[in-house]
Amino acid sequence: MIKYLRILLVLCAFCAGGISEACAGASDSDSEAAIRSVLQQQQTAWNRGDVKEFLNGYWHSPELTFSGSGGTTRGWDDVLARYQKNYPDTAAMGKLEFSDLQFRFLAEDAALVLGKWHLKREKDELGGVFTLVWKKFPEGWRIIHDHTSLAVGQK
Amino acid sequence: MIKYLRILLVLCAFCAGGISEACAGASDSDSEAAIRSVLQQQQTAWNRGDVKEFLNGYWHSPELTFSGSGGTTRGWDDVLARYQKNYPDTAAMGKLEFSDLQFRFLAEDAALVLGKWHLKREKDELGGVFTLVWKKFPEGWRIIHDHTSLAVGQK
Repeated sequence: MIKYLRILLVLCAFCAGGISEACAGASDSDSEAAIRSVLQQQQTAWNRGDVKEFLNGYWHSPELTFSGSGGTTRGWDDVLARYQKNYPDTAAMGKLEFSDLQFRFLAEDAALVLGKWHLKREKDELGGVFTLVWKKFPEGWRIIHDHTSLAVGQK
Repeated sequence: MIKYLRILLVLCAFCAGGISEACAGASDSDSEAAIRSVLQQQQTAWNRGDVKEFLNGYWHSPELTFSGSGGTTRGWDDVLARYQKNYPDTAAMGKLEFSDLQFRFLAEDAALVLGKWHLKREKDELGGVFTLVWKKFPEGWRIIHDHTSLAVGQK
């Protein structure tokens, strides 16, 4: 009888562990650090004029979306083309800075990140806010949707 | 012996059910229908000039966020105040229409919805794109973050 009770207890502990392992995951602070690192790499790539390397922060998929003043662009290739058209050289790219990042985890493998962007160029300064939706893939956290807009009257 | 085996089987079935119930959920199509219904109610409320009823589609929380050309507004009360300031009467509100909705489910209780908005007023027409992040609460699906922007050259 005691033997079977032991088996029951072990089984229940195993099942409870399964639930917790299946539903929880890496800590939010680990995920936040991983996302911050991708954003830092993007900023560094941008500031040396490397748009393609900047694009590595995005999900390399035809399902990637980018929303802005031009509407919604779909697919990694078209998002790259949009960046290359709007920022053809290092003068147009200027120096990029992200700030005021706010993280919200929607699932173990999904996050919402808000923030501000600021671009300092020789001819002008501009800035605004962005909304980034992230998913965790085997290769790491990547942006699956970006909505970036210019803030009126914000430099 | 057989009795204990039966207990083990029942317990395992119970535990497996727990995992599946905890991690899976309502189908995406049910959730999409529920979100579409909230958006339809918002559109109807807006078009009869009821901003407060329109705001019912949003998470009633100080953590609600709204990003746009004015930067990021935080908290349900401030988002309401922003709408009331920018759209003080039915003439300013005009007739609102949402279109081109695209749904992506990030978790059982989290969704990303992209779409277009169009406002027809006596004095002008304007439009753009939006990004909505939704969470499912006991009271139903609510927007926890809205990023809305004006599309240049889009009516």
